[in-house]
Formats: sequence, C-alpha cells, structure tokens
Amino acid sequence: MALTLSELARLVDGDIVRGELDLLVDGIASLDEAGASELSFLGNEKYRALYLVTRAGAVIVPRGVEEGPEGCALIAAENPSFAFGLAVKHFVASVERTFTPGIHPKAVVDDSAKLDPAKVRIHAGAVIMAGAEIGEGSEIGPNSVVGENAKVGRDCLLYANVSVRERCLVGDRVIIQPGAVIGSDGYGYELVEGRHVKVDQVGIVEIQNDVEVGANTTIDRARFGRTVIGEGTKIDNLVQIAHNVQIGKHCLVVSQAGIAGSARVQNYVVVAAQAGVGGHVTIGAKSVLAGRAGATADLEGGQTYSGMPARPFMEEQRSRALIRQLPKLVERVKALEKKTAPE
Amino acid sequence: MALTLSELARLVDGDIVRGELDLLVDGIASLDEAGASELSFLGNEKYRALYLVTRAGAVIVPRGVEEGPEGCALIAAENPSFAFGLAVKHFVASVERTFTPGIHPKAVVDDSAKLDPAKVRIHAGAVIMAGAEIGEGSEIGPNSVVGENAKVGRDCLLYANVSVRERCLVGDRVIIQPGAVIGSDGYGYELVEGRHVKVDQVGIVEIQNDVEVGANTTIDRARFGRTVIGEGTKIDNLVQIAHNVQIGKHCLVVSQAGIAGSARVQNYVVVAAQAGVGGHVTIGAKSVLAGRAGATADLEGGQTYSGMPARPFMEEQRSRALIRQLPKLVERVKALEKKTAPE
Amino acid sequence: MALTLSELARLVDGDIVRGELDLLVDGIASLDEAGASELSFLGNEKYRALYLVTRAGAVIVPRGVEEGPEGCALIAAENPSFAFGLAVKHFVASVERTFTPGIHPKAVVDDSAKLDPAKVRIHAGAVIMAGAEIGEGSEIGPNSVVGENAKVGRDCLLYANVSVRERCLVGDRVIIQPGAVIGSDGYGYELVEGRHVKVDQVGIVEIQNDVEVGANTTIDRARFGRTVIGEGTKIDNLVQIAHNVQIGKHCLVVSQAGIAGSARVQNYVVVAAQAGVGGHVTIGAKSVLAGRAGATADLEGGQTYSGMPARPFMEEQRSRALIRQLPKLVERVKALEKKTAPE
Repeated sequence: MALTLSELARLVDGDIVRGELDLLVDGIASLDEAGASELSFLGNEKYRALYLVTRAGAVIVPRGVEEGPEGCALIAAENPSFAFGLAVKHFVASVERTFTPGIHPKAVVDDSAKLDPAKVRIHAGAVIMAGAEIGEGSEIGPNSVVGENAKVGRDCLLYANVSVRERCLVGDRVIIQPGAVIGSDGYGYELVEGRHVKVDQVGIVEIQNDVEVGANTTIDRARFGRTVIGEGTKIDNLVQIAHNVQIGKHCLVVSQAGIAGSARVQNYVVVAAQAGVGGHVTIGAKSVLAGRAGATADLEGGQTYSGMPARPFMEEQRSRALIRQLPKLVERVKALEKKTAPE
Repeated sequence: MALTLSELARLVDGDIVRGELDLLVDGIASLDEAGASELSFLGNEKYRALYLVTRAGAVIVPRGVEEGPEGCALIAAENPSFAFGLAVKHFVASVERTFTPGIHPKAVVDDSAKLDPAKVRIHAGAVIMAGAEIGEGSEIGPNSVVGENAKVGRDCLLYANVSVRERCLVGDRVIIQPGAVIGSDGYGYELVEGRHVKVDQVGIVEIQNDVEVGANTTIDRARFGRTVIGEGTKIDNLVQIAHNVQIGKHCLVVSQAGIAGSARVQNYVVVAAQAGVGGHVTIGAKSVLAGRAGATADLEGGQTYSGMPARPFMEEQRSRALIRQLPKLVERVKALEKKTAPE
Repeated sequence: MALTLSELARLVDGDIVRGELDLLVDGIASLDEAGASELSFLGNEKYRALYLVTRAGAVIVPRGVEEGPEGCALIAAENPSFAFGLAVKHFVASVERTFTPGIHPKAVVDDSAKLDPAKVRIHAGAVIMAGAEIGEGSEIGPNSVVGENAKVGRDCLLYANVSVRERCLVGDRVIIQPGAVIGSDGYGYELVEGRHVKVDQVGIVEIQNDVEVGANTTIDRARFGRTVIGEGTKIDNLVQIAHNVQIGKHCLVVSQAGIAGSARVQNYVVVAAQAGVGGHVTIGAKSVLAGRAGATADLEGGQTYSGMPARPFMEEQRSRALIRQLPKLVERVKALEKKTAPE
C-alpha cells in the first residue's frame, strides 16, 4: 500500500529534509535499482556514489546529510538502515509468512507425539517421531524431522529439511533455517588396538529462547550433559558447534566459523566468519574474534582479536605492518653490512 | 559398447601414436586401475610414474609424448583430459541419467503449482508448494522442496534433499547437488536494548541459466532485492553466499569459500577453496583468489591474489620467502652488533 | 540402574582410592553439574579447579591422584575418560538406540530394491530407489534417500535427511550423521569458448567398513573410478572430500577440513579442523595436519605440520616466534644505524 512522504517519515521516525509531503511511494529497492515511486536508503558511506546518481523517489539518509540527487526526496534518520527496515516491514506485508495452523495430510506425526493439531503447522513430508513435542504457534517445514522425545517450544519456525535428533530441546521463538542439524553425535573416539572406537554421545543439545540457527549449520549433542546455545544468540550458515560447547547469551557466530569441543563462549561475543575456537578454550564476554581468527588459548573479554593464533587486534596489525616492511629491513641490514665491511 | 583403437582415435579427435588399429577397448579407468581392454589418460605430468607402469590397453597422452609402457597403445591429443571425457561419455552411456517424465505417487504437488505432469519428473517425497512453477524437462529429486511461488526453469536437475525457499528464481539448465539451500534468510540483526532483533530478509535469490550449485552449499536471499548468481557460474560444495551478493557470469567458486554480504564478484573470477570475500568488497573481473585468500578490500581485476589479507600473489610470495629467511636475518644483525661493539 | 561403588570400580576396571564400598551411584554428569549420587570424571588437568569443588558423589581420576573434594569417593583408572565411557554405557542403556526392524508405512521402497523387510529398519519418508540394496541390521533414517543401485552394507545407521547418490557403495557398520551427502558430482569443468562445460562425473564413492561420516559433510563421486574412504576412518561435520580423493584406513578428518581433488591421505593421518589438502597432494601415513594447516605439496609421513603453506610444526613455531620478535629486531637495526652513522 502506497504511502505519502509525510506518512513515511512518521512510520520510520525520521525528518523530511526535502521533498513534497504528498509524494507517493509504493515500494522499496536498492539505490541502483530504485525508480521514481520507490524508497531506498543510504546506510554506508561506501554507497555515496550510487546515492548521488540514484533515481529513487525518496531516500532515507543519516542525519546531517543535506545534499542529494536532483528531485529526490530525503528523510533523515538516526539509523537509516533500521529506519528502512521499518519501511520494508510495511511494503512487504504481502510477502510475509503467515501462520496458518494445520497438519498436512502428507506429514507423518507419530501417535505419541505431543502437539495440538489446531495450534501448530506441520508441512508435507515432515516427520514428528514418537514422544516428540511441538509447542503452540510452531511451524515445522516440509521434509524436516523432529526426533524421538525431542521438544520444540512455542512460536518456532523450522524451515525445510531440518533435522532435530532425539531428546534435543529447542526453546521458544527459535528460527532454524533449511538443512540445519541439531543433535548430531559429537566427534569422539578412543584409539584401541589401532582402531578408533566410538565414544557414545548420549547428551543432548539445548537451544534456548530466541536463538536463530543458519542453513546447513551443525550442532553436536554433548558426550553427556548438554551442548548449550544461550538465549538470543544468532548463528549463521555452515557453522560447526562441537559437543559440550557452551555458547552464552546474545552472541553472534558468523558463517563457516567453528567452535571445537567443550569451548566456552561467554555472553555477547562475536565470532566472525571462518574464525575458529579451539577445544576447551574460553572466550571472555563481549570480545570479538575477527574473521578467520583462530583462538587457541583462553581470551580475556572485552577485546578484539585477530590472526592465527589469535592475538589482540592492534598487536596483530602491527605484526602485519612489520611483515610488509620486511623488504626494507633487509635493505637496511645490507646497507649496514656494507658500511661496516673492512675497506 | 567396445570400440577399436581407430574408432576411439576418431571419437576423441586424436592421433594414434602406436598400437594395433583393431585393438578392442571396452571401458575406462585410472592409470593405476586400468586393465588390458581399458582406456586411460595422462593429463598431468605428476602421473608420469603411474603412466610408465600402467597396465591399460590404451592411453591418451599429450601431443609429443612417444614413449610409454610396453604393449600399451597411445593416442595423442591436444587436451588429453578433454579427449578422455569424450571417451567417458561413450562408455558411460549406460550409467547416464535419463530423463523420464512423471510425478511419483509419493511426491506432494500443491494444486496451485504450475507444471506439466507429462514434461517434468518429480521424485518420491519431493514437495512442490503452492504457486511454485517447474519448467519442462526439469527433474526434482527425492525429498527436495520447492517453496511457495518459487520458479524453477527448464531442463534443471535438482538432486535429493535440496531446499529452494519461497519466491526464489532458478533459471534454465541449472544443476543443484544434494542438500543445497537456496534462499535462506540473510544474516542481519540490529542490537536493540541488548538483544539482536532480526532484520526482515524479504528479497530473493536469482540463479541464472547454466549455473551449478554444489552439495550443502547455502545461498541467502537478499534483505530486499536479489542475491544474484550470474549465468554459467559454477559453485562447489559447502560454499556460503551471503545476502545481496552479486556474482557475475562464468565464475568459479570452489569448496568451502565464503562470500560475505553485498560483495560484488565480477565476471570470470575464480574464488579458490576456503577463500573468503569480505562484506561490500568488489572483486574485479578475471581475477583469481588463491586458496584460503581473504579479500578484505576491493581488488582490481585480472590479477591473482593470495594471503590474508589478500595481496597480489607475487608480493605475498616474496613476503613468505622473507619470513622463511628471518632466522638468517637475525644472525646477520647479531653479527653486526658484535662487529660494532666497543672492544 | 544404580550401582555400588565397588560394582562401579569393577565395571570401569579401576581401583577405589577412597569412599564407602556400598555408596550408591545412580547417574552420570559433568564435574560442575553432578550431585551426591552421581559419578563424574577428571580427564583433563584443565578441570582440576572444577574437580576440587565438585559435589559429585564419586569421581574417576587418573592414577596417582589422591586428594579430592571432601566426602567424594575416588576411583583411579589408567584412562579416566575411557573408564567413564564404560560407566556411561551402563547408565544410558535406557536412552540407547535399539534396532527394531520394519518398514514404516510412509517410507518409499522401490519394488526392485533389495532388502529383507524383516531385517532392516526404514523410517518414515525415507526413499529407497530402484535397484538399491540395504544389508541386514541397517537402519535408514527419516527422509533419507538411497539412490538407484546404491548399496548400503550390514548394520549401518544412516540418520535423517542423508543423501546417498546412485551406485555409491557403503560398507558394513558405517554411521552417517544427518544431512551428509555421499556421491555428489565432482567439481570439474573445461573452459570452452568462454563457458565452463561440465565434465561428466561418472565414478562413485566407496565407503569402507566402520567409517563414520559427520553431519552435512559432502563426499564427491570420482570423475571415473572411485573416491575412497578407507576402513575405520572417522570424518567430522561439514568436511569436504573432493572427487577421486583416496583416504586411507583409520584416519581422522576433523570438522570443516577440505581435501581437494585426487589427493591421497595415507593410513592413520589426522587432518585437524579447518585444515586443507591441495589437489593431487599426498599426505604420508601417521602424519598430523594441525588445525587450519594448508598442505600445498606432498608431505612425508610421521610428522606434524602446521601453517599455510604447511611446514613441519617446530619450523612453523619458530617462524611465528620470530614474527612476534620483529619489533625488537627493528629496534636493534635502528640502534646499529645510529651507532654507525657519521658523527
């Protein structure tokens, strides 16, 4: 549904810098794709060049920005990306997922499963096994599997082809993207007479409330006890969480990162893309592991680390700079050798 | 079906270097496994030792090679690997996938899905959701899911357990290996009062014609607009493509590489195994990111880059060489200190 | 079922260091979670602090340890982790998977599949395609797919959403965690007139006896011939094994590692997390690639390697130490320059 510029400004809690109050905006798009009736936003200085030539009808800009492409209305907001998100919510209501309860006739729900058919949605091909429990308002995607005695809380959304193995616990309002695996066996063997003998992995995974798990991410069950993903933590795609890991609350674990067995990641930690945390290592609260960093020992909280093995960010940066200057250092040593050589 | 050596030479557009014209060849195998009635090839100098002791009846070799194991027929070709591929095509016709249209009685096709049952093949357990469209000649593998209003073009091959989420677009002649996920939510949150609040990801993924997507690879939908995989691009297994990424035409993205949000990868780029491209970074056309390289800033086209952060290949190589020579440099400085010390 | 301390000691082949012989133990838990009737263990010196304050009723400790928390019974064992595993087996019998043969009415088994319905277990939604063979005692998880003419041996356990493609061979007692893909196409193309043309991948994957494959791991079929995973090898989650790779017997390949095309990994090799092995490279028997190591050339057996490119561990360690000392080296050169400068 189209909005006028003034309605838009109110919706996103922004101020009109310029533009006609009754300009009609009927959609959203990126700076380089938007047309005369569409809204875009400038969230990153990097896109200023695109911004200056956009054909968008209106753009949400950071406060302080006053110039822009000719004829383009401007709305200033504290956080243009967040403000734009509010506009997105309005315009995409039509594509938003709606919850319609019901069990698809081609879903397979065991007789002993605990769920209220009038209050959950189970898609075609989903398999809900013996003793499994699905809370009200939850949706289990097509061809997903919820194992024996596993428990999925309220208002969860499991997409297609997700596997939740036996006895694992998923809290409320948890989102699991397609193909993710919850509760695979931890990786543990004892070498006995030249053969790796499997160490039983009889624990579970506990995923607390408001967690999100990315596509094809794998979270192993504990050897015994629980692998825990703390409340509000968001995990990206293709991440590996090994057995007995404890991840705190409100962490971010970005794509292709790996957390080895029994590691502790405290609250509000950010593990960036392709980073790794070694086994039995503790990462202190509010620290940041930069992309590709490898934590091989305990790290104090509140700092940023990078490199492999991970070191405080500035230390690692200095190290990299010195390596780039190595050719010069070699030249200086050569000059000294010449100077001090016997004539 | 067996071929004579002369038929084989004609088939692969090669020249017989030695061997009886009517030698019968009835199969293909690697140099170390082939027997007296089988064809193999020498595609890489590394395998010369294996070649010299092969028991193959015939071997395709690069032009110029004239010696070989006793009693072994030789066919010279410009590109032995490519030539062998032609022979493979002949001998493996019996194991080649053939397209037989039909909807398996245990497939689940929504009444509103758009497809011609006489011209598509939908396997057991596949779920084609409301409004989804499957083009003629396309095959949807067992237990794969095509989401609401998603569109799969003509002559596509989706293997088992693939997930294509709602509204995503898959072009013509696209191959998707098992377990791949197309259209999972992009990874985006705003920190509001200590909690990560999900930023709606309402865009889609557009996969253009002749793309291949590897097993368990994940491609996130755009926040708004489209994540694009350009025509003819081939993506390997376990690759992560984040939201709003634009990959050009005819690129190669090798296993376990990751492309972060909003990155631009221009045409004919090679991103080698385990490499990474940072968010909002542009990789120029025809450049190569070596294995494990990490591109943290825009890179000009036409060059090869390696290291983390990625630098021009030769620069990075010199740097590595200097690091290997550090012990010597330390010795030289020690010697200078001795020499200049007051007696 | 509860055990007395003396029964426990016998079960785990340990010696009672202290504690009442008839103390009753009825469960297992970690040091920080165990209560007065539960058994825990001290397997890693790192947990000594937790051990000293545990409230466990009994703890299995390494031989030689004699002090412990007040009132806590101690059992000494050669390998406390292994001993604890024996206790785990006893206490978790109730949660152990039991094999109950049968084909779920919602499984899809092709008429030409070879299996004995009285001796296999096929879960709901599993698809067993034409000509596929499932050995006695094997279990195929919900929504898993076994492709045309593929063969799964005896006493295997495939969890949910696994894909085994056509003609692949899986040995006996193989465990495949959820979402793993066996037999996806190898990644091979020829550049012809500016387009990447697919090279047919007509070989298979052969998984030998007693192998375990982790969740969402991908193993590509050979171009021709076989990609081989040797007997007793254990592969973790999200690992990539490319086409024509030959992995020896009793190897460990840890999470997110990648093995490129035609690489040879000999017996008893350990490839640690996030490591990589380049194409056509051979890794000698009993060698260890440390976490994140990248093998770009053949490596001799029996050694430990680290870094990228991978070098002998001690060499790499010295290199890292020298890099950390670079700031001092620069200072020393500066001092020399001062000293030798003309006054």
